Amino acid sequence: MKLVRYGRIGKEKPGLIDEEGKLRDLSGVIGDIGGEQLSDKAMRKLAKIAPETLPIVRGNPRFGVPVAKVGKFIGIGLNYKDHAAEAGLPVPKEPIVFMKAITCLSGADDPIMLPQGSKKTDWEVELGIVIGTRARNVSEAEAEKYIAGYCVVNDVTEREFQLERGGQWDKGKGCDTFGPVGPWLVTRDEVWDVNQLDLYLELNGKRMQTGSTENMIFKVPQLVAYLSRFMTLEPGDIIATGTPPGVGMARKPKRFLKKGDFLRLGIAGLGEQQQDVIGFQQF
Amino acid sequence: MKLVRYGRIGKEKPGLIDEEGKLRDLSGVIGDIGGEQLSDKAMRKLAKIAPETLPIVRGNPRFGVPVAKVGKFIGIGLNYKDHAAEAGLPVPKEPIVFMKAITCLSGADDPIMLPQGSKKTDWEVELGIVIGTRARNVSEAEAEKYIAGYCVVNDVTEREFQLERGGQWDKGKGCDTFGPVGPWLVTRDEVWDVNQLDLYLELNGKRMQTGSTENMIFKVPQLVAYLSRFMTLEPGDIIATGTPPGVGMARKPKRFLKKGDFLRLGIAGLGEQQQDVIGFQQF
Repeated sequence: MKLVRYGRIGKEKPGLIDEEGKLRDLSGVIGDIGGEQLSDKAMRKLAKIAPETLPIVRGNPRFGVPVAKVGKFIGIGLNYKDHAAEAGLPVPKEPIVFMKAITCLSGADDPIMLPQGSKKTDWEVELGIVIGTRARNVSEAEAEKYIAGYCVVNDVTEREFQLERGGQWDKGKGCDTFGPVGPWLVTRDEVWDVNQLDLYLELNGKRMQTGSTENMIFKVPQLVAYLSRFMTLEPGDIIATGTPPGVGMARKPKRFLKKGDFLRLGIAGLGEQQQDVIGFQQF
Repeated sequence: MKLVRYGRIGKEKPGLIDEEGKLRDLSGVIGDIGGEQLSDKAMRKLAKIAPETLPIVRGNPRFGVPVAKVGKFIGIGLNYKDHAAEAGLPVPKEPIVFMKAITCLSGADDPIMLPQGSKKTDWEVELGIVIGTRARNVSEAEAEKYIAGYCVVNDVTEREFQLERGGQWDKGKGCDTFGPVGPWLVTRDEVWDVNQLDLYLELNGKRMQTGSTENMIFKVPQLVAYLSRFMTLEPGDIIATGTPPGVGMARKPKRFLKKGDFLRLGIAGLGEQQQDVIGFQQF
């Protein structure tokens, strides 16, 4: 299934995308798509519903984050061989873990707002993992069954805040609007091989990032197992698994986001995001 | 007011501690103590209730985290002059920001569980700030009015995970049980001078940490204003503001927590925590 939450910010309703790409309303079936609805059991129940029996949603509503009430938004750093190489950094011995503030969560096509004083806001297309079942010290072999599904994440990052303001990355990772997720949560049964997914990102129509999850240093089950030794993963937690090459910081010359820029990014089978870059606004 | 959430894990009820130190039940008045109940308006309403009209709670129930549904649990590193000195590190030019996974939140007297394979679990008594009103790019001068109150936090940290496993601290900051908070949320009107609070921590009856918030490098209003430029602070967010000297890592010889240890820690006017240290358990 391709699950979505559609509608205005804070008023999202649950829905699904049917085989013809049509948006159908799930609000008669479930209240929302959050931790409680992501267990295998709940998912099996949902999968029994024939999509054609659900009302079609007209128009082109906004897509919100496809998971409600996310508890943790965890990031993995330098997880692509080719990205580590472009950053001029050694391949990590074990996953680098940081956290994105949950207040940065944003719909797939919501604008990215440059923080006040930002000069180095950068893009990072990433595969997102959505946890379906509580995972605590789980093994790599059994890790997959704790995963509800996958999604596209733009792990937007302010490089100066991340790297030049004390060394802890979180300061540059969690600014408001820095976490577009979606448009869809694609359940894991629909992802043929999570280690063979193509990722791309375009800036103003020009290709910037091209990658494949086959170049991930630590694979999806490794990441889930590893993280679950340091913190309990809860249903609805999202893990951004690192970015392939082509970020603005690594380009020559460097290229950072500015007002008026337009991003388009996606992952094969997981949908596409489109974001306008806007200047700082006090709101 | 001294607000609490008392009862079994996941079943906490709201309450308050009256002037005689008696626990009184607030569940007839409010559903819980979370973001919605922390605004100045909601607090003023609550303050109008005469505590003696509330039922006394008998027995000695457990105290849970005094705030429900915490969104973010933010930490500040190296924020005491005397602690930076003992760590042999320069005084930071601006606050060092990290995040504690919200799954590490724990009641004031709940046991601390050593993570699997941990050899360097350490203590850190800290002043916690609880946000009462959404704060986004607020000034230092107005920061205080966004604060609901203060609490004791033990910012438990696994030093190997924090410092020797990739450089990003979050891995050693958010293990399960690493975030005892409470016992009380003391509303800001009851804290005479947040820059003059004595902190202490004892290990097995022996004093380990002695400090005063007057040695904080970045003061409470500075921290709130600063953080609010990097992320929106929401009602119920908790900020652990750094620890005074005396952590296990800085002692000679180093002393880390082991099974059977007992911690007692507190801050003048904000109450005391007591924690047994237990070995790793798969649960």
